[in-house]
Amino acid sequence: MRNVKLTIEYDGSAYHGWQIQPGLRTIQGVIREQIAQITQQEVNLIGAGRTDAGVHALAQVANFQTESTIDVPSLQRGLNSLLPSDIVITSAEEVQEGFHARFSARCKTYEYRILNQPYPSAIRRAYAWFIPHDLDLPSMKKCGKLLIGSHDFSSFRASGDESRHSMREVLRLEIERRNGNLIVIVIEANAFLREMVRSIVGTLVDVGRGRTAFSEFKEIFQVLDRRRAGMTAPAHGLFLVEVKY
Amino acid sequence: MRNVKLTIEYDGSAYHGWQIQPGLRTIQGVIREQIAQITQQEVNLIGAGRTDAGVHALAQVANFQTESTIDVPSLQRGLNSLLPSDIVITSAEEVQEGFHARFSARCKTYEYRILNQPYPSAIRRAYAWFIPHDLDLPSMKKCGKLLIGSHDFSSFRASGDESRHSMREVLRLEIERRNGNLIVIVIEANAFLREMVRSIVGTLVDVGRGRTAFSEFKEIFQVLDRRRAGMTAPAHGLFLVEVKY
Repeated sequence: MRNVKLTIEYDGSAYHGWQIQPGLRTIQGVIREQIAQITQQEVNLIGAGRTDAGVHALAQVANFQTESTIDVPSLQRGLNSLLPSDIVITSAEEVQEGFHARFSARCKTYEYRILNQPYPSAIRRAYAWFIPHDLDLPSMKKCGKLLIGSHDFSSFRASGDESRHSMREVLRLEIERRNGNLIVIVIEANAFLREMVRSIVGTLVDVGRGRTAFSEFKEIFQVLDRRRAGMTAPAHGLFLVEVKY
Repeated sequence: MRNVKLTIEYDGSAYHGWQIQPGLRTIQGVIREQIAQITQQEVNLIGAGRTDAGVHALAQVANFQTESTIDVPSLQRGLNSLLPSDIVITSAEEVQEGFHARFSARCKTYEYRILNQPYPSAIRRAYAWFIPHDLDLPSMKKCGKLLIGSHDFSSFRASGDESRHSMREVLRLEIERRNGNLIVIVIEANAFLREMVRSIVGTLVDVGRGRTAFSEFKEIFQVLDRRRAGMTAPAHGLFLVEVKY
């Protein structure tokens, strides 16, 4: 058996997330179907992160075992010619037997994009959360720093999350303004709870709008109760940008 | 009568271009319909540039005369709430009686975006022409410089163009690489022939790929025959970015 690692860019707009679900169009489902088409074998396609409906990826990683002898560049070309244009295999390589896209991952990086200008954008409407209000970036950064390190992230965990525990280590949390009107929140962690980035972003935006003070943010984080945190930011501003092994 | 000037951003993907055509969904048609909805009057909406099917705009300009007394900020908010999310009015202002979006324009700037990397992009698929081949930018720039100034652009004119003459003055033609893999061709001119930017870009790409030498490009330009030039670059890489008055 060979073990093949794929790096995948996708526009999540038209999909019910990464993970296969009966009767729904998902990224994992569509790719798996085309791998079967090329290799004539069903495969178990393992993704590094199960992105939610509407979330995008610049570099999702997945792997699968196959008995097919097709060379990897041909497999990549074949997949890219069969897949719809909103999913692209940006690299394919054969990896050692033990490589597992999810369990071998050391850490993952997500970027959340906010379009902060008086009016929405027609061109970027599917790739950033439009917020016309002034946002206090220094206050957001101050709160963001609290999250760095190993903590219990229960306050930023979706109700449906099935993880055994809610301790996660945030390695990096950066908030920066790009080209004047784009605010990018970068979060790197060893692993993520379900909707963790989006509920952190929603709560940080409350801070930026002056609705939540630093002391309240600190309390929200420490009280370990999702109901205290802010809204879940919309999926279409979120990108899985890197998985490190 | 009041004269209202609109600045408009749009994603042209779902439209048959700017200009109203019977039975087809066009930018001008959709905006005019919503202005009529708000003002309860039919208007003549004049656009600065008649962008073709699939072409985008960051700042198209249009104007219309109206007897409505609605204040301009309310008109803008109303239009943005009624228009689909792929059309956004980024500014609205009352202008003097004689202002005509098309005839008052001194010059217009278009940007053409080429995504130059080994594999296509899922996220940017609708906003750049994907070219995986190496492109010789210095040669493209050298040829581009020939076009600056007042010239007869018959070699870069679509067959359906109805302009009375084909002299145009190109004020600026810049070719630059951004973020490594995006090549942007900026063309500013007093006016444009139909498909002029896209046929210039198609011919410059032939130069970049080594298919057309400098001397051949010069001949193509001077011979005033569209059949000699390269392909018309696809519409989805083209953006109307500025109109100066």
